[in-house]
Amino acid sequence: MHISLTLNSVLDRVDYSSFDGDLGVRRITGVASLEEAKQGDATFVASSKYLDQLNGSFASLAIIPEDLEVTPKAGQLFLRVKNPSIEIAKLCEMISQEMWSKPPAGIHRFADISPTASIHPTATIGAFVTVAAGAEVGPGCVIGSGSYIGVGCKLDENCFLSARVTLERDTVLGARVRLHSGVVLGSDGFGYEFEGGRHRKVPQVGSVQVGDDVEIGANTTVDRGRFGPTRIGEGSKIDNLVQVGHNVTVGKHNILCSQVGIAGSTKLGDYVVMGGRAGASGHLTIGSGAQLSGQCVAFSDLEGGAKYGGAPAVPLVAYQRITVVTRKLPELFKRLNKLEAQLLEAH
Amino acid sequence: MHISLTLNSVLDRVDYSSFDGDLGVRRITGVASLEEAKQGDATFVASSKYLDQLNGSFASLAIIPEDLEVTPKAGQLFLRVKNPSIEIAKLCEMISQEMWSKPPAGIHRFADISPTASIHPTATIGAFVTVAAGAEVGPGCVIGSGSYIGVGCKLDENCFLSARVTLERDTVLGARVRLHSGVVLGSDGFGYEFEGGRHRKVPQVGSVQVGDDVEIGANTTVDRGRFGPTRIGEGSKIDNLVQVGHNVTVGKHNILCSQVGIAGSTKLGDYVVMGGRAGASGHLTIGSGAQLSGQCVAFSDLEGGAKYGGAPAVPLVAYQRITVVTRKLPELFKRLNKLEAQLLEAH
Amino acid sequence: MHISLTLNSVLDRVDYSSFDGDLGVRRITGVASLEEAKQGDATFVASSKYLDQLNGSFASLAIIPEDLEVTPKAGQLFLRVKNPSIEIAKLCEMISQEMWSKPPAGIHRFADISPTASIHPTATIGAFVTVAAGAEVGPGCVIGSGSYIGVGCKLDENCFLSARVTLERDTVLGARVRLHSGVVLGSDGFGYEFEGGRHRKVPQVGSVQVGDDVEIGANTTVDRGRFGPTRIGEGSKIDNLVQVGHNVTVGKHNILCSQVGIAGSTKLGDYVVMGGRAGASGHLTIGSGAQLSGQCVAFSDLEGGAKYGGAPAVPLVAYQRITVVTRKLPELFKRLNKLEAQLLEAH
Repeated sequence: MHISLTLNSVLDRVDYSSFDGDLGVRRITGVASLEEAKQGDATFVASSKYLDQLNGSFASLAIIPEDLEVTPKAGQLFLRVKNPSIEIAKLCEMISQEMWSKPPAGIHRFADISPTASIHPTATIGAFVTVAAGAEVGPGCVIGSGSYIGVGCKLDENCFLSARVTLERDTVLGARVRLHSGVVLGSDGFGYEFEGGRHRKVPQVGSVQVGDDVEIGANTTVDRGRFGPTRIGEGSKIDNLVQVGHNVTVGKHNILCSQVGIAGSTKLGDYVVMGGRAGASGHLTIGSGAQLSGQCVAFSDLEGGAKYGGAPAVPLVAYQRITVVTRKLPELFKRLNKLEAQLLEAH
Repeated sequence: MHISLTLNSVLDRVDYSSFDGDLGVRRITGVASLEEAKQGDATFVASSKYLDQLNGSFASLAIIPEDLEVTPKAGQLFLRVKNPSIEIAKLCEMISQEMWSKPPAGIHRFADISPTASIHPTATIGAFVTVAAGAEVGPGCVIGSGSYIGVGCKLDENCFLSARVTLERDTVLGARVRLHSGVVLGSDGFGYEFEGGRHRKVPQVGSVQVGDDVEIGANTTVDRGRFGPTRIGEGSKIDNLVQVGHNVTVGKHNILCSQVGIAGSTKLGDYVVMGGRAGASGHLTIGSGAQLSGQCVAFSDLEGGAKYGGAPAVPLVAYQRITVVTRKLPELFKRLNKLEAQLLEAH
Repeated sequence: MHISLTLNSVLDRVDYSSFDGDLGVRRITGVASLEEAKQGDATFVASSKYLDQLNGSFASLAIIPEDLEVTPKAGQLFLRVKNPSIEIAKLCEMISQEMWSKPPAGIHRFADISPTASIHPTATIGAFVTVAAGAEVGPGCVIGSGSYIGVGCKLDENCFLSARVTLERDTVLGARVRLHSGVVLGSDGFGYEFEGGRHRKVPQVGSVQVGDDVEIGANTTVDRGRFGPTRIGEGSKIDNLVQVGHNVTVGKHNILCSQVGIAGSTKLGDYVVMGGRAGASGHLTIGSGAQLSGQCVAFSDLEGGAKYGGAPAVPLVAYQRITVVTRKLPELFKRLNKLEAQLLEAH
């Protein structure tokens, strides 16, 4: 990445309480971790734990906690801030805006737009994109190369679809939805009736409805409802390679990490967190604020506001105790054998 | 979705024994669950368990069990049937046919068709589709936008490929195969020989052969055989994000739920069912009619006609007992400590 | 596949010590397993274990171990070799080169190439490919149909991208990298700060850097670093549907089987092997030569040069013992109940 930020533009954006030292370069040309930073780079320190690494770092600019006792080397500038993690994020956002600057509005000559589709004049349609009949693409949307927007889809303003995203027909996106490459929304739910030795398809005539500010990771799939919608609530964030089954409701502001799987008709409340490869079987209710650790799978309803582990899921503390004692199982068997021998002897 | 069905067209299709009440609207304009149904919608009741919800529902048409004792409200029509689930599926199929009505035959102007490929005149080739040398696309096939049909692939009649499907070279599809967006059939199997500190690729020169009436979900991958085919048997249904390794044989009429993984050379019999994220390691035989519950993983051969749970898989009943007692492990250790103390004291 | 190899071309390539019998056909027209081979096919025998199958095989040519005592049937030729598995691989490589012969260099008329991109004249750009601003495609690269090469990507020589591969901006590929269909490199890492009841995106401004001779399977995803790169080391092989999180370092010559997941910032040493659906949580170090069996998940650092099983990962031998005794848990409870009753009685 080719970045070039002036110190003034950085100082305008970052919320600092004081600063120390002198930037030894004309411009900030990168952002890197303490260890990988070279001259010209900005970096940050989350806590005093990383003091040694800061002392060894070649970064030109470091965003550090207010109370960290440390002096910059020559040609180094330290910005003292309340929350370094949030302030470095602002800096990255400046870079991010430079990196993914909005492409000019318009429709690529190699796009295939139905005459009954409606594309807002401020939207950008990339190469090899299909927009099917009756679809509506809102103001400021960017549709990446090779994406497919099916019949009757509706995209609210400023959605960003990366390359090769599929929206099957009737998918509805709120404002500022961000979909990464390979996402498929609205594929058929997995439903069959067994009849005469064959699996007969149960038609899936529902849809997928995605709230404002949702982000969905690469190659994740969300099936359409059998009838009625599969819903992803406002502000929820979904990582790569996640499966969301038909008629699932994901509440607002959920976090679903990579490889999570949610089977059909399950309802997640708001602020649910599911760690990597966590899951839930079908027709369950997971209460608001429930947190499932990595690999934790719910096979029955879970109350909100609590942490869970294991598969089947149990309260996290219980899971941790079970994990510890499970490792001692071979020892347990030995102790039991000994006890039995002693008792036998005693009689 | 914009649906408009006359009552007569519904009565022609649904197998009802009697009816009650009057449809208060001119046309059926949607299908929904009991709770989400509004005026104009059809719905269904699976059993008497849902009687309260039926009484509270705004549906105009309800398909209900023959023996359910209930009277429609004004403007509501009840159709009494043997199997409500099957009859609502027929209704959804009518809607489905309206939603995914067959596009007109022909080849899109933005398609890339090899001069040696053979496309049946009744087939439909979408925008940005590649059909490579020697490939054959049969009567009535629909190839969605952005799909890729490799060298020498053969598609029998009425296959449906959604947008962005990949068939690598020599893939063979039976009749009426349905592939969802992002499916990849025929990627190289994962095989290497370790030689001189490096992994040397074992060429994968087999193929993928898919039987009639198979359906495969979004972003699922099936690798080509090392040599000889990887096979998906007639009538099998595979959900999203499933991995099928090289030289696997999936038998007929299997059900593989989302995130299942089958390692190389494993053979599944007919009517095998694998729940969500179930799996099998390589070179195994899973007998016909075996049912693996969600998360169950076979590490050795499994006999057919039985249910399994756990990883490694054990008979389901054993797994359920193990699961129950595992939760009591911390208690078990306490009891053991107590016993040991008592015995020590006794001596 | 339509293969036609002369016996001489086979004898030129395979390292045999002696041969027996006569090829009953003019040409080798396929490769198959012992059981599936028909006249014209070549096959191989790994060890004396398969002697019965060899006797029943219709293969015209068999590559067999030097010391196997067996006589060919009429019209069968046996090549005796040191390592049959390696020699059949050479034969398959000949076939493979015929199957995937390099397409002619050049840019397809339906490709979308930025005027500031640089495409080497010996590279092949397929239909519906986008190559964005500043990207560089090296000598001999083949970019499959529908692939997307983002801004500033750099591909060294002889990379092979199958159909529908996505490289997000600033992705760097070494020489001879092979990416299967549906791969996404450089999607945003999954990072948010929780602020005022909402998940605020942490910009992901790093990149993905892939070493020489890496191969990555269908629909696998590798996220870009938050800042700094996510790295896949030289010679590593990654299977289908794998997730590699942001700022992960995969060392050299790793093997990651299907459905593996590696959470953010974890570092894998060299020659690490992860079986199917193995995993590692974030910010861990997995030592060189560590081998995680299928489904094994590291929740803490693992030392190199050892084998592990279970989730959380423990040494493989311990895991195997735990697995055995876990199955006996219901019995254990019964024995404990009995002991307690005996002691109660004794007092």
